[in-house]
Amino acid sequence: MLSIKKSDTGYLARALRIAGQGIYTTHPNPRVGCVLVKEGKIISEGYHLRAGEEHAEAIALRIAGSQARGSTAYVTLEPCSFEGRTRSCASALIEAGIVRVVGAMADPDPRNAGAGFQILRDAGVQVTTPLLEKSARALNPGHVKRHETGMPYVRLKLAMSLDGKTALANGQSRWITGKFARYDVQRLRARSSAIVTGVQTVIDDDPSLQVRFGELDHMHAKLASVLEKPIYILDSNGRIPKDAKLSSDSNAVLVSCSSIRTPMQTLQIERDVDGRVKLSDFLALLGQLECNEVLFECGATLAGSLVQQKLFDELIFYIAPKLMGNGAQSLLKLLEIDNMDDISKLRITDVNMVGDDLRVLAVKD
Amino acid sequence: MLSIKKSDTGYLARALRIAGQGIYTTHPNPRVGCVLVKEGKIISEGYHLRAGEEHAEAIALRIAGSQARGSTAYVTLEPCSFEGRTRSCASALIEAGIVRVVGAMADPDPRNAGAGFQILRDAGVQVTTPLLEKSARALNPGHVKRHETGMPYVRLKLAMSLDGKTALANGQSRWITGKFARYDVQRLRARSSAIVTGVQTVIDDDPSLQVRFGELDHMHAKLASVLEKPIYILDSNGRIPKDAKLSSDSNAVLVSCSSIRTPMQTLQIERDVDGRVKLSDFLALLGQLECNEVLFECGATLAGSLVQQKLFDELIFYIAPKLMGNGAQSLLKLLEIDNMDDISKLRITDVNMVGDDLRVLAVKD
Repeated sequence: MLSIKKSDTGYLARALRIAGQGIYTTHPNPRVGCVLVKEGKIISEGYHLRAGEEHAEAIALRIAGSQARGSTAYVTLEPCSFEGRTRSCASALIEAGIVRVVGAMADPDPRNAGAGFQILRDAGVQVTTPLLEKSARALNPGHVKRHETGMPYVRLKLAMSLDGKTALANGQSRWITGKFARYDVQRLRARSSAIVTGVQTVIDDDPSLQVRFGELDHMHAKLASVLEKPIYILDSNGRIPKDAKLSSDSNAVLVSCSSIRTPMQTLQIERDVDGRVKLSDFLALLGQLECNEVLFECGATLAGSLVQQKLFDELIFYIAPKLMGNGAQSLLKLLEIDNMDDISKLRITDVNMVGDDLRVLAVKD
Repeated sequence: MLSIKKSDTGYLARALRIAGQGIYTTHPNPRVGCVLVKEGKIISEGYHLRAGEEHAEAIALRIAGSQARGSTAYVTLEPCSFEGRTRSCASALIEAGIVRVVGAMADPDPRNAGAGFQILRDAGVQVTTPLLEKSARALNPGHVKRHETGMPYVRLKLAMSLDGKTALANGQSRWITGKFARYDVQRLRARSSAIVTGVQTVIDDDPSLQVRFGELDHMHAKLASVLEKPIYILDSNGRIPKDAKLSSDSNAVLVSCSSIRTPMQTLQIERDVDGRVKLSDFLALLGQLECNEVLFECGATLAGSLVQQKLFDELIFYIAPKLMGNGAQSLLKLLEIDNMDDISKLRITDVNMVGDDLRVLAVKD
């Protein structure tokens, strides 16, 4: 059924590339790109910029105008079949006289899930899909995972010395990694729907966890700066200091297991067997709150729980070329194991130098 | 004075490449390559294979025969000026009628140290040097360091999980890294003049530390297998088990601080302030014993001492994509420090995947 033309992958790759322009801003929507091609020429392109504004297809159709008739649309995600904040893109493509749609992947959103492609086919539009699906899924790991499982895509950021230490015995830990690693973390924060930390990190480091858009080298960094994103502080027993920077941040949300008297926004979550915020419930709630990608920036206890419970999707290690020795604090608090075969195994998917530091990405094996 | 021709770097790079064929076998000599070029064509080549046998220049001259007259010799190291196990290469080049010598670097061996180039110049041979010196020094880090400082080039191999752990709390540690990392270690062992371990590793792991040449993908792996190399066991107080594999290895040498009754070869070295074998004295002795490159494969205590005393040149980290947690054993025993500014800093010089594991090379910053 799949009739791929030689030039299809090239145009679709272009659509994927421009879709990436929305990486910091489309939340809770997916990043989507659209390229219209007629007689071997790109006649218009569009990408979704932020929720409530035009979809990628709508922008490309508007730019093309009457020229759209008879052209092929390359889209990175199945066009929507439902009227949401905007009109249905599938209908718009039909009305504009598009004769063929090349779609990278079906939309896992249950409101769509094949219905968009079906509307097109029913109207006589030729549909070619999937194509470059792996890249299209990688563009929106959170959107995909949330609609497939109800849970957000969880990244855990870890910074350490080459011997796996995060702080001296006395707790000193500032600036293990260099500025380029810190800039890189800004990009992780910016693309996430929410940031999560633990109260111990708030007590130890008093972080602001802000996205400093001045450090983002991106066309839409300025726009991204007006989009506020929640910062969740897991604080089972309400230990957050009143004078912590996050205590007065209007985007900060305290996540606790008991009702706590605080002027901050709070979320109450059940305790797990260890008496801490039950992470699986918390993540399911973030899914319901339409969080796609979630970034954990936290200490050894919370990070260890996330690893132990296998609730992460991706680990990002920033490894500084330093040695701190056995007396320093370890990266992860994990339950002690007695057999090498029981160790948590990962798979390394990417390695890069970031300034003087090493960045290693790993996923569950 | 330097009259480099356009083709010089290409021929010299070729000489460096063939010199690498001696990487496992030339000890205690340096690896050297020679290419003879006449009228724009390579007429012969040679590389040094092992001590006592022909030098690179002698092989190339022998192959070229009377054709050598009027040609240019590309050599990766200054030709020797002294009669050692073989005749002086500088004289041989002159007698063969070589008109020009392009030498990558001067030989730091004090018996040579410029005398080889001088003999050539005095005989009217045009000498172009240095060229590609950095690569030539990298080919023989041990030969260079030993003659410049009296000490061997020291590599410390470390294998660990991504969170910097080497063994479970109960001591279990076998096979943290995969087989490709272990093959890679074979290459490190094979190129070293000596292997060093600590008695605690012998007690814990009972290693053989053999070079398994069947795992070396190298032209001369078989020849290398007949070259025996010493394995030094640092054992300040003579704790080595009588039934350890190394106890009955004729290449094993016990390094202790007191005279110990053992059938093994022994070396007596002074104690340091911690009561252990004084590492700087031990390394100086290895230098006197003509060890060029030395590989330490040891546990957290000896590795920590080497790092603490800054006596290593290169660290090789094999990092398995596993997580072992805070209860597991740390990579390095270092003195506790109170200030982040006092941390040992390194510079990462190479990063590679070796099978599923990561290999990171680092030097002192």
